Amino acid sequence: MLPEPIKKFAEIFSTLPSIGNRQAIRIAFKLINGGKAKIDELAKTISDLRYLKTCSRCFFVHMERDNLCSICSNPNRQQNVIAIIEKETDLISLERTKKFKGRYLVLGELSKTGILDTVQKLRLNHLKDLIKKEFDSAKAEEIIIAVNPTTYGDINASIITKELAPFTKKISRLGRGIPTGGEIEFADEETLASSIDSRS
Amino acid sequence: MLPEPIKKFAEIFSTLPSIGNRQAIRIAFKLINGGKAKIDELAKTISDLRYLKTCSRCFFVHMERDNLCSICSNPNRQQNVIAIIEKETDLISLERTKKFKGRYLVLGELSKTGILDTVQKLRLNHLKDLIKKEFDSAKAEEIIIAVNPTTYGDINASIITKELAPFTKKISRLGRGIPTGGEIEFADEETLASSIDSRS
Repeated sequence: MLPEPIKKFAEIFSTLPSIGNRQAIRIAFKLINGGKAKIDELAKTISDLRYLKTCSRCFFVHMERDNLCSICSNPNRQQNVIAIIEKETDLISLERTKKFKGRYLVLGELSKTGILDTVQKLRLNHLKDLIKKEFDSAKAEEIIIAVNPTTYGDINASIITKELAPFTKKISRLGRGIPTGGEIEFADEETLASSIDSRS
Repeated sequence: MLPEPIKKFAEIFSTLPSIGNRQAIRIAFKLINGGKAKIDELAKTISDLRYLKTCSRCFFVHMERDNLCSICSNPNRQQNVIAIIEKETDLISLERTKKFKGRYLVLGELSKTGILDTVQKLRLNHLKDLIKKEFDSAKAEEIIIAVNPTTYGDINASIITKELAPFTKKISRLGRGIPTGGEIEFADEETLASSIDSRS
């Protein structure tokens, strides 16, 4: 009963993060009822994502004329403090805090097996090369391993630590504790223990 | 920090039903990391929604060669029982039940003011014309007003009832009661009262 273009749309659309089949169908009808101009606008907006480039230094996306993203080409950012992140959206969240003035390395989502994939290994090697080439004593000032504090995040973090330790004076992870607005009563033991360690 | 194409994407995408700005950004990165082929596939899938036609009888979408959707052109469906529905997705939900063998009239989403808009009035008039032309005694067998049992759904339903009553032998609305899996304790009084009336 559903025409082929809507079925196809729902099939493709429901592969996107947190979109289910029913929501995809609802979106299809919203678009159809919005008219051809709306459909074309959305199709073009998606098509335009083609033109995004990847920063040759940190692997974040950008639209700058040269090969570096706006963070890597910003002379006011600390060169020798590097946060290793999984996803571009993690970078965005960290930037929103306005607390971090260093640079990044986008690693790509870590697998739950605790094994780095080929791309991730290449990116870490790329970082080591940069450090060797650019910094005195071939060491960064600090590397922050900003992966999620989950079980497999921890496994991966220890692998990354081992890889990068020779290339930095200091290596750290993001602090753990009770999230703002959270309740002590409902915090798990590990989080609570961390919050005691990181008390201020 | 976010490149223009991603900002634009998030802006357009977050106007779609139940998609927020953050989810839109997450989707953008998923697409970008999926590569150009994935981006093109999605853009094309959306573009193809252009080719959908509107049934000249019930206003549902279709891709048939003539002007009727697959339901209206199906000789096995009852012609003289018509469900008035708001949204195409309501039609899909009703079809899933396999309980309804009649046809539909897609009215478009009802406003909360309880006033039918111009398109909705035209569609009701179109139905009246069909009934006058096609049925003996210029009356349908039954018209089911399948709008949501909400306050403004009820207001609209009574307007529609008044409009259509002269053109049908029977006019009805969907039964109300406790949804399957629901709990009596938590049902509101009106629902519970309906469930007593419609007991079986």
